[in-house]
Amino acid sequence: MDLLVTKGFYVTVLDDLSAKTDLRYLKPHLEKRKADFHKISVQNYDDLLSLNMDYDCIFHLAAQPDVKLSVSNPRFDFETNVVGTFNILEYMRERDVRNLIFASSVGTVYGEPDVFPTPERYPLKPISNYGAAKAASEMYCSSYTSLYGFNITSLRLGNIYGPRSTHGVIYDFYHKLQKNSSELEILGDGSQTKSYLYIDDTVNAFNIAYENLQEGFDVFNVSSEEITTVKKIADELTNILGLNDVTYTFTGGKRGWKGDVVYSSVAISKLQSLGWDAHTTLETGIRKYVEWLNQF
Amino acid sequence: MDLLVTKGFYVTVLDDLSAKTDLRYLKPHLEKRKADFHKISVQNYDDLLSLNMDYDCIFHLAAQPDVKLSVSNPRFDFETNVVGTFNILEYMRERDVRNLIFASSVGTVYGEPDVFPTPERYPLKPISNYGAAKAASEMYCSSYTSLYGFNITSLRLGNIYGPRSTHGVIYDFYHKLQKNSSELEILGDGSQTKSYLYIDDTVNAFNIAYENLQEGFDVFNVSSEEITTVKKIADELTNILGLNDVTYTFTGGKRGWKGDVVYSSVAISKLQSLGWDAHTTLETGIRKYVEWLNQF
Repeated sequence: MDLLVTKGFYVTVLDDLSAKTDLRYLKPHLEKRKADFHKISVQNYDDLLSLNMDYDCIFHLAAQPDVKLSVSNPRFDFETNVVGTFNILEYMRERDVRNLIFASSVGTVYGEPDVFPTPERYPLKPISNYGAAKAASEMYCSSYTSLYGFNITSLRLGNIYGPRSTHGVIYDFYHKLQKNSSELEILGDGSQTKSYLYIDDTVNAFNIAYENLQEGFDVFNVSSEEITTVKKIADELTNILGLNDVTYTFTGGKRGWKGDVVYSSVAISKLQSLGWDAHTTLETGIRKYVEWLNQF
Repeated sequence: MDLLVTKGFYVTVLDDLSAKTDLRYLKPHLEKRKADFHKISVQNYDDLLSLNMDYDCIFHLAAQPDVKLSVSNPRFDFETNVVGTFNILEYMRERDVRNLIFASSVGTVYGEPDVFPTPERYPLKPISNYGAAKAASEMYCSSYTSLYGFNITSLRLGNIYGPRSTHGVIYDFYHKLQKNSSELEILGDGSQTKSYLYIDDTVNAFNIAYENLQEGFDVFNVSSEEITTVKKIADELTNILGLNDVTYTFTGGKRGWKGDVVYSSVAISKLQSLGWDAHTTLETGIRKYVEWLNQF
């Protein structure tokens, strides 16, 4: 958002505020008339149609983000993440918007692959409804691109963390440690290995995807190459916080929750070939994130 | 249906009759109380929930079947083919039905692959909304299987033809020739090469899939290995009908319609390893189909 305005774009922002988005970062742009904001859900197509400017590109990040919730309440997740994306694509067809960058997921669409690092061409076999929704959405990105001449790029993103983020494992650990600095509960056995992505590297991926958008549907894994267990995240965080005496307790089981992918390591050479890289190490990233979290 | 009753099963049949299903074949089973019928759409979850028997397995073939319509009216196709399948899966979760055979599509989910014959592991990249809907449905079959312990097999079916079928290219050609036996309009340039599947071989595939249903989500291509162009279908049909003097006219372009996959050839060794095969040659199949069509 900040980058788009810096680049000289006027931005229309949509959010139904269901994930309690903090609008304070948007305010300066609204005041300078560089953006407008609409409390609209992508679930509601008629509301979407009320927006009628000559948009160049849609950055579609509207989603129910919680894998756990997608398992306990599949229909809500489906309505937001599949119907929502379908509505965006229908909007593009109706309003003749040609370009879309779609925020997909690198850690959930492949399910439990047997090739590491997993390349984009690997067949999708999600084990959570969240992953199924992102994969299903990509299927429609594929057909709409082919049928109606759209240019669509799907960025399969790792777990994004960093300033302004108010969910995710690091955020959760930080607040657990605020409450009790001697003990930290870790979901699962702590050996889950995931793909993380610092916010600045994420924004840069969107920027590069937009700059390189071309005819057809394309897909990119976006992740750090650092292989990190959840326990190592905890180590890193407690170290940065200067807490040397934290006892870990584990809820046990190999998964943190139902539908949790326990090992993810993906190939990122495709996006690297466009000049992107994950420049921020996990240590630096967590350090910057903690600095931000410490302000509150 | 006939086979299921022969095998001793009691069958509940659901159809919203939107595709003008001919119920005459069902009638004997209803009269013998081997089956019950409900005019219900899979789009309507509340209606589905009204059915509450201890079902062993769902054979999910309810769909909007027309690729062309999926392109001109994406939302109707989405509601029937994606929401419909999602509702079936939700029904299974709610009513504790463990087994599902899903009718997917071999000719549309891969889009335009560059590997022939295309194996099941090939990544899905549909070019029609019909294909996207089938692929999206498979993504949910995958997650639901993993999350809720279902046993699901997806049969990616070729173009099914044979007695009782009232749509498809052979059906269309037959009726065009009934109206005018000297000229036949062929959509596209006639070189489109597709996967066909005779009805008896299709039923046998469902039977074998059911007999071999096991834990997890599995996918099988189901198609004849005969490589056949649309023009060759026309040749075969005119030959069987004894029409030697038919002039073909072509609407032109490589696709018969928007979203039409022009070349499909899939690997069927996976289902063959379970003892299935396409026993009916295209010539025999068309001959039997014509015998049936000639009755009316």
